[in-house]
Amino acid sequence: MRILLVGAGGVGTAITRIAARREYFDHMVVADYDLPRAKSAVAAAADPRFTAARIDAADSAAVTALLTEHECDILLNATDPRFVLPLFDAALAAGADYLDMAMSMSKPHPDRPYEEVGVKLGDDQFARAAEWAAKGRLALVGMGVEPGLADVFARYAADDLFDEIEEIGIRDGGNLTVDGYDFAPSFNIWTTIEECLNPPVIYEKDRGWYTTEPFSEPEVFDFPDGIGPVECVNVEHEEVVLVPRWIPAQRVTFKYGLGDDFIDKLKTLHALGVDSTEPVAVRTDLGTARVAPRDLVAAVLPDPAELGDRMHGKTCAGTWVKGRKDGKPREVYLYHVVDNQWSMSEYGSQAVVWQTAVNPVVALELLASGKWQGAGVLGPEAFEPRPYLDLLVEYGSPWGMREQ
Amino acid sequence: MRILLVGAGGVGTAITRIAARREYFDHMVVADYDLPRAKSAVAAAADPRFTAARIDAADSAAVTALLTEHECDILLNATDPRFVLPLFDAALAAGADYLDMAMSMSKPHPDRPYEEVGVKLGDDQFARAAEWAAKGRLALVGMGVEPGLADVFARYAADDLFDEIEEIGIRDGGNLTVDGYDFAPSFNIWTTIEECLNPPVIYEKDRGWYTTEPFSEPEVFDFPDGIGPVECVNVEHEEVVLVPRWIPAQRVTFKYGLGDDFIDKLKTLHALGVDSTEPVAVRTDLGTARVAPRDLVAAVLPDPAELGDRMHGKTCAGTWVKGRKDGKPREVYLYHVVDNQWSMSEYGSQAVVWQTAVNPVVALELLASGKWQGAGVLGPEAFEPRPYLDLLVEYGSPWGMREQ
Repeated sequence: MRILLVGAGGVGTAITRIAARREYFDHMVVADYDLPRAKSAVAAAADPRFTAARIDAADSAAVTALLTEHECDILLNATDPRFVLPLFDAALAAGADYLDMAMSMSKPHPDRPYEEVGVKLGDDQFARAAEWAAKGRLALVGMGVEPGLADVFARYAADDLFDEIEEIGIRDGGNLTVDGYDFAPSFNIWTTIEECLNPPVIYEKDRGWYTTEPFSEPEVFDFPDGIGPVECVNVEHEEVVLVPRWIPAQRVTFKYGLGDDFIDKLKTLHALGVDSTEPVAVRTDLGTARVAPRDLVAAVLPDPAELGDRMHGKTCAGTWVKGRKDGKPREVYLYHVVDNQWSMSEYGSQAVVWQTAVNPVVALELLASGKWQGAGVLGPEAFEPRPYLDLLVEYGSPWGMREQ
Repeated sequence: MRILLVGAGGVGTAITRIAARREYFDHMVVADYDLPRAKSAVAAAADPRFTAARIDAADSAAVTALLTEHECDILLNATDPRFVLPLFDAALAAGADYLDMAMSMSKPHPDRPYEEVGVKLGDDQFARAAEWAAKGRLALVGMGVEPGLADVFARYAADDLFDEIEEIGIRDGGNLTVDGYDFAPSFNIWTTIEECLNPPVIYEKDRGWYTTEPFSEPEVFDFPDGIGPVECVNVEHEEVVLVPRWIPAQRVTFKYGLGDDFIDKLKTLHALGVDSTEPVAVRTDLGTARVAPRDLVAAVLPDPAELGDRMHGKTCAGTWVKGRKDGKPREVYLYHVVDNQWSMSEYGSQAVVWQTAVNPVVALELLASGKWQGAGVLGPEAFEPRPYLDLLVEYGSPWGMREQ
């Protein structure tokens, strides 16, 4: 297998470090618009199978040419969600497979943004499913940790643990702190703003997908492994649009343990308008230029991938499922915890970034071995969950299950 | 009198509208780095005595040349505090007088920023007082409303109302609201961030100048004219460094009625680092450029000068003085209130901007008539207060006094 990895940020760099320990692929081209960043991710892998390239992820034709030049079988997208569509199109044009960890962006309903969905996450990708199927090529979408592993858990619960499912609720929380920072998001702030300030989406069987106000329906969820109770709120996330396509459930939700302080700061960014992606004219050293305020916020905040040395604690991603098995009520939480101390000492990557990165590397190994195969635009829940969960354990990163 | 007005923003434009109704000057050149803005301020005056020019306020030599070319007697600085020093220097080099409404910037103490002063507001200007005096030229510094009118009030209290003064406390508050905005500062946000997030300065006779944490010593002050009680906190402001130079008082403070919501938003801007003036590299339509985060915040927020039509309420600036007169304790609040509805209908300028702008126009008239004269670097409290206060009434904008 020959892979083109696009995006050598925190997740991309962790991907090279994780993949370097696996034998299943022959070559990985690491491409970024910032060539030194790509070179540094290649250096982190310390493996001759990796080479660096410069690419503008927004330039579909250039990406197609790069895939063709390096005879890549698959494009692994580790950029932010703005680049999903050009990369997705580039892979199809090159006749390559495609894998991403976040899906094409949503657009709120024009009149009733906090009640009805507009364009949903991934809609623009699923609209082209027939083309991918016709070409016999696979776009495996939403294959990080959330979405990704969380969806594999949902499929596992539906296959092996439940006869009928009332609710599938992805619940994400942790107890990470960062020394010396008032505010230091542990994941890409551009994406965090996008998902937290968009109207959260909820699925109900009788109602379909609908939206609410941001940060709605707070609940305290008790996370395992010493993390403990964290207040979680509804956030727009891919799992809610992916799970119902393959798994019958009465209700699907995603809640994120953001904490009051983080929510307040996001609300302030929004009230001030500095979360906006609409460029404004501002004075720069090159003269008056147009800058998207959110890009500046991302540039000001510390790079979450660089904070591992100052971080303490654990992050937990998981899928809570409520339903019935053998006529009796059942409730489980399937989860995956990464301790920052472990991921730093073992891989030099901080916990949240590492947890996202390990999953596409596992998924690619299943595709390389043929244990997972398919064509069209498919989510992680379209595949057999057991081989995935077993391989994740083999990677040294076990998952857990709590009956509750 | 021939005047060079530098800065055709909200205050600069209000200055042209107010000055156009007065006879005392022969010509006013309105200069801005954005020529259309200067032209629009000139158009607002609708008076042949005004002409527009393009100038970079940071380019001292170009400003000197402009002063010389137009044979200006005085430079009126209506830019933000970053440009105080180059404009101050330019006027001295041209042999012109100088007037500003905010003084040269402070620099926090390197080790104990919230206890000791570092470089104080205006220090860099006062350091050159001997040069101004030797040339027989006047730099009248801090001559807006606060600093400015507030300092005139302090001098009036010291001359006519008190035998000894325990505390002079500038108190600023209002009840302005802006329709349709969650957060719309009523004054230049760049300056507001600067003054609110810098360590507030306090003067005490026995201790000299010292600093505290931002937003310290909250107190509820009851503002006149129907505004009512507003919580005020310590903020760094020029009056605290100006007043003690000319007026004997045990203590001098400045408190601003910011409101909890505004304080929270400023604290968040600071926690995120987007209040910073240190440029960061960010993607723009001209390529990667360096942008000062605070410039972007200012670019995103609505221009306070454009909000007059959506504003309601009044703003109050004033000086509270506590001491003794004829052996008895006395406490007064000398104040100036502007109702936005009045300033909009009368001048088309919103209240806060108009209140700042009227004061330098009054001061220039006293300089033109010779009622105020002097050489060196002088604050408003260095001059006779009564002619000023009378002329302000003649401008249709009375002040008030409350015994309390």
